Amino acid sequence: MSVRTARIQLGTHGDADVCDITDQVAQSVSESKLKNGTVTIFSPSSTSALTTIEYEGGAVSDLRRLFDEIIAPNRDYAHNARWHDGNGHSHIRASLLGPSLTVPFIDGNLTLGTWQQIIFVDFDVRSRQRELILQMIGE
Amino acid sequence: MSVRTARIQLGTHGDADVCDITDQVAQSVSESKLKNGTVTIFSPSSTSALTTIEYEGGAVSDLRRLFDEIIAPNRDYAHNARWHDGNGHSHIRASLLGPSLTVPFIDGNLTLGTWQQIIFVDFDVRSRQRELILQMIGE
Amino acid sequence: MSVRTARIQLGTHGDADVCDITDQVAQSVSESKLKNGTVTIFSPSSTSALTTIEYEGGAVSDLRRLFDEIIAPNRDYAHNARWHDGNGHSHIRASLLGPSLTVPFIDGNLTLGTWQQIIFVDFDVRSRQRELILQMIGE
Repeated sequence: MSVRTARIQLGTHGDADVCDITDQVAQSVSESKLKNGTVTIFSPSSTSALTTIEYEGGAVSDLRRLFDEIIAPNRDYAHNARWHDGNGHSHIRASLLGPSLTVPFIDGNLTLGTWQQIIFVDFDVRSRQRELILQMIGE
Repeated sequence: MSVRTARIQLGTHGDADVCDITDQVAQSVSESKLKNGTVTIFSPSSTSALTTIEYEGGAVSDLRRLFDEIIAPNRDYAHNARWHDGNGHSHIRASLLGPSLTVPFIDGNLTLGTWQQIIFVDFDVRSRQRELILQMIGE
Repeated sequence: MSVRTARIQLGTHGDADVCDITDQVAQSVSESKLKNGTVTIFSPSSTSALTTIEYEGGAVSDLRRLFDEIIAPNRDYAHNARWHDGNGHSHIRASLLGPSLTVPFIDGNLTLGTWQQIIFVDFDVRSRQRELILQMIGE
């Protein structure tokens, strides 16, 4: 049993930019040489989050619409009133979706479904350079 | 320290079918012979998800109403327009709730609260045969 | 590799009380003497949940407004009709946000972002004494 750390670098466009990171995660697991365990993907940020989806344009567009509807950008936020950075909605969206995702791997392969991809969603209002932490634990 | 994998098979009815899987998870932890660690329950699917709830008819009904309200089935989805499978809302609901849940166990027992059960929610629009992955890491 | 368990005790006010538990989690990781691994924070309760946020008054207020809007307290809940405890909304909020959060640590430090704190949200309708479980796995 051991712990292996990897990092993923991403350039994102913000405004609920949905990035498929499945290949990078799979490659990190492969390079770790661990066979069975879990990988925790973590976003060290308060305006971005992680989940899975069938990564095709329609579903991605529907997901973005959900956040536009329940946590709209163009309304008042107490965060914006205090800090004037205009990303109050980004914070709340990120908190709701969550910064952490743990996925099992078996025989060196992620246990994702056929139509299931791992996505990083950058809710911030501008382009960002992001780094994700991958903590793999296994044997 | 070691890793143990188990699987749970489930027949579900779809349409936000909420299944209590607590007993199956507890049994898998018990059979693993691990005493202290975590179990990650993962759904390898893009139309189902995991969380906990007090599993009684009222709360389950209230949870289903929430999803009917914020991610309604009977409206347009870009996913449906492209793929015509009618489960656009299922995908978005699953992404929001999340496919992964990690629960600690101590002395071979899940650390759930008295009124807290682990649930699998199948958001797809038809009956499905599902398999969940349980990855237990501990000693 | 080993497993270390810690517990955090919290007095909360209920009604979406948002508590910053970052320091307690960081201290538990430090005291475990583990250098690299993950900590899973788990709430053994069906009316509270965990996530991260930039912990400042504005964002916290915005998060509470979100739950007031999408899962309002002052409406009918099937859970309340059956059990008359008035916390039907608390259960659904907790299920949506989720009871579990896994955060990596490296060289004994949580990998949180500069503006990112770990929060426990107590959605129940009254003051509670809460205990959280921290399961640390690492080396």
